[in-house]
Amino acid sequence: MTDSTRQPGDLMATEIAEQPEAMNRLLADTADVAQVAEQIRRSAPRFVLLTARGTSDHAALYAKYLIEVSLGLPVGLVSPSTYTIFGAQPDLTDVLWVAVSQSGGSPDLVESTAAARRLGALTLAVTNVPGSPLSEVAELALDVRSGPELAVAATKTYTSTLLALWQLIDHWRGGDGTAAAALPDLAHAVLSAPEILDVVARHRFADSVITTGRGYSYPTAREAALKLMETSYFSAHAFSAADLLHGPLAMVDEDSSVLAVVGRGAGGQAMAPTLQRLSELSAEVTIIGDPSAATGGQLVVPIPADLSEELSPLLEIIPLQRFAHGLAVARGLNPDAPRGLAKVTKTL
Amino acid sequence: MTDSTRQPGDLMATEIAEQPEAMNRLLADTADVAQVAEQIRRSAPRFVLLTARGTSDHAALYAKYLIEVSLGLPVGLVSPSTYTIFGAQPDLTDVLWVAVSQSGGSPDLVESTAAARRLGALTLAVTNVPGSPLSEVAELALDVRSGPELAVAATKTYTSTLLALWQLIDHWRGGDGTAAAALPDLAHAVLSAPEILDVVARHRFADSVITTGRGYSYPTAREAALKLMETSYFSAHAFSAADLLHGPLAMVDEDSSVLAVVGRGAGGQAMAPTLQRLSELSAEVTIIGDPSAATGGQLVVPIPADLSEELSPLLEIIPLQRFAHGLAVARGLNPDAPRGLAKVTKTL
Repeated sequence: MTDSTRQPGDLMATEIAEQPEAMNRLLADTADVAQVAEQIRRSAPRFVLLTARGTSDHAALYAKYLIEVSLGLPVGLVSPSTYTIFGAQPDLTDVLWVAVSQSGGSPDLVESTAAARRLGALTLAVTNVPGSPLSEVAELALDVRSGPELAVAATKTYTSTLLALWQLIDHWRGGDGTAAAALPDLAHAVLSAPEILDVVARHRFADSVITTGRGYSYPTAREAALKLMETSYFSAHAFSAADLLHGPLAMVDEDSSVLAVVGRGAGGQAMAPTLQRLSELSAEVTIIGDPSAATGGQLVVPIPADLSEELSPLLEIIPLQRFAHGLAVARGLNPDAPRGLAKVTKTL
Repeated sequence: MTDSTRQPGDLMATEIAEQPEAMNRLLADTADVAQVAEQIRRSAPRFVLLTARGTSDHAALYAKYLIEVSLGLPVGLVSPSTYTIFGAQPDLTDVLWVAVSQSGGSPDLVESTAAARRLGALTLAVTNVPGSPLSEVAELALDVRSGPELAVAATKTYTSTLLALWQLIDHWRGGDGTAAAALPDLAHAVLSAPEILDVVARHRFADSVITTGRGYSYPTAREAALKLMETSYFSAHAFSAADLLHGPLAMVDEDSSVLAVVGRGAGGQAMAPTLQRLSELSAEVTIIGDPSAATGGQLVVPIPADLSEELSPLLEIIPLQRFAHGLAVARGLNPDAPRGLAKVTKTL
């Protein structure tokens, strides 16, 4: 495919399709991630701070749940501005600082990570660009090895970042990473599953959508909303299934579309009260995940049941990426190069 | 005013107007807050975890910035579900755990705070209901003393909670709280300032709005969006001014309305690149805060310059509460009792 024959959305579609291969790369060689995990383990951090923006922020949020639940460490998500704009100088002894950035180039992340290192944190950069400014400034670095990503809307770097973070945490807690072995084959299956195409068609003229999830699947809801905003330029609003009940529910009526990401496990089960309320309000609900959560009337995009709930976000996002891509193309937009956006956003 | 003569929105308007008086109550008697601050100081926490939902979550976010910047402690915002749904058991030695809840009644906050106390944290409940289940379960408690709040959309409890948290942090860092002395008079002035009425009129037929802010003013943007969703049932989407540039900006065009909260200080100054991009996209921007941030064409709702940037969120939210109230009434809705919501939301 040359530039002249490329159609709008081809880049994004290609990169969505490359995800199983990118996952395979990470699974095939775990020497780096095991080594970084060992260094973190030796330093025995008591508190973890994560910092990121955009899509990477959703990967950081995933890591937050995983660290809190499976490593039993308190975790905070840091606003870089606290360091770069307000000049905070906290004592970061015993802190692991993880900066997540596809490009490793945003000045606020580089500057706040440099500050964190000076303030005593063990610093780790997770990027898709080895040798990036962020990787250079951090003590430890992990390369998510997605290969170059050309579409402005990040897709394969998102799942690669989730997987690299999962591998890191799994090694850190004493695992060997093999629980993720089936992931590439499952991702292949999800890539060609037809159910999402009906969901695309049904939203051709929608002017807004709500996404929701809980626990590990809440980052999926956030990332899906961002993809839709970036590529189809409409209001996509993500809420945790609990926060949705605290106020925003007033927006919901029979003309609302809600995409509910429902994992198999404690997080998915905790979605039940929210799904019940949405049903009472006659909202149109599409369930991405566990078909058994459907009580009648909902559209369902099933996700294979072969993985634990903590790994399912690596599959759940794929139909939602396809949704964002398909909807943008159906509307005559070019999701490869959304208006007003550059691939690398530099914020201070 | 009896129930039979009450018009839709009267309750919310009354409670908005009570804010200076509620502030005065907190400023007039600081013995409790000084004592709680002293107990926290003696325990010398190294990390702070905050937990809350809905409006209280925005007050917690405000406290997060204030603690990070002025106390130099790392802070995390906790999802209660990590404890209640996923059963995380982190070691919380050296952690101050602050649970913020107007009612003190949401089961997830009560349960996660009880867990935090067992896990070694010093626990503090900040509520408007002394003797609430949350206050009982926590080791320390602060009453924000707003008086009963009857409208479903929280207004006076929000500013009272902000003020109580500010007082706590100010005493903790060695202040005496007098920097806030002018607040009630300034709040009075903001309550009757006319500029927001034009903004209400202009949004009569809007079907969505974006709110944005940075640093201390980002919680204001979040809270304004929630008020609008709750009372006018339309899509109000809050972004930090930095995150807005990382993707969501693609949604913005000449038919977009953006409410930008611009403080006077480092946070407000850091809004400049975002305001610049919004201007290039010909979005309609309303500036709440510093009139000097307007470069031409923007609507301006000025906030008095007499307070430091860290205290200005206590004033900035007032015109935005009036905006939410005024818009709902103009649309024939009843902001006192939004559809689908109860005053106390109980999530697990």
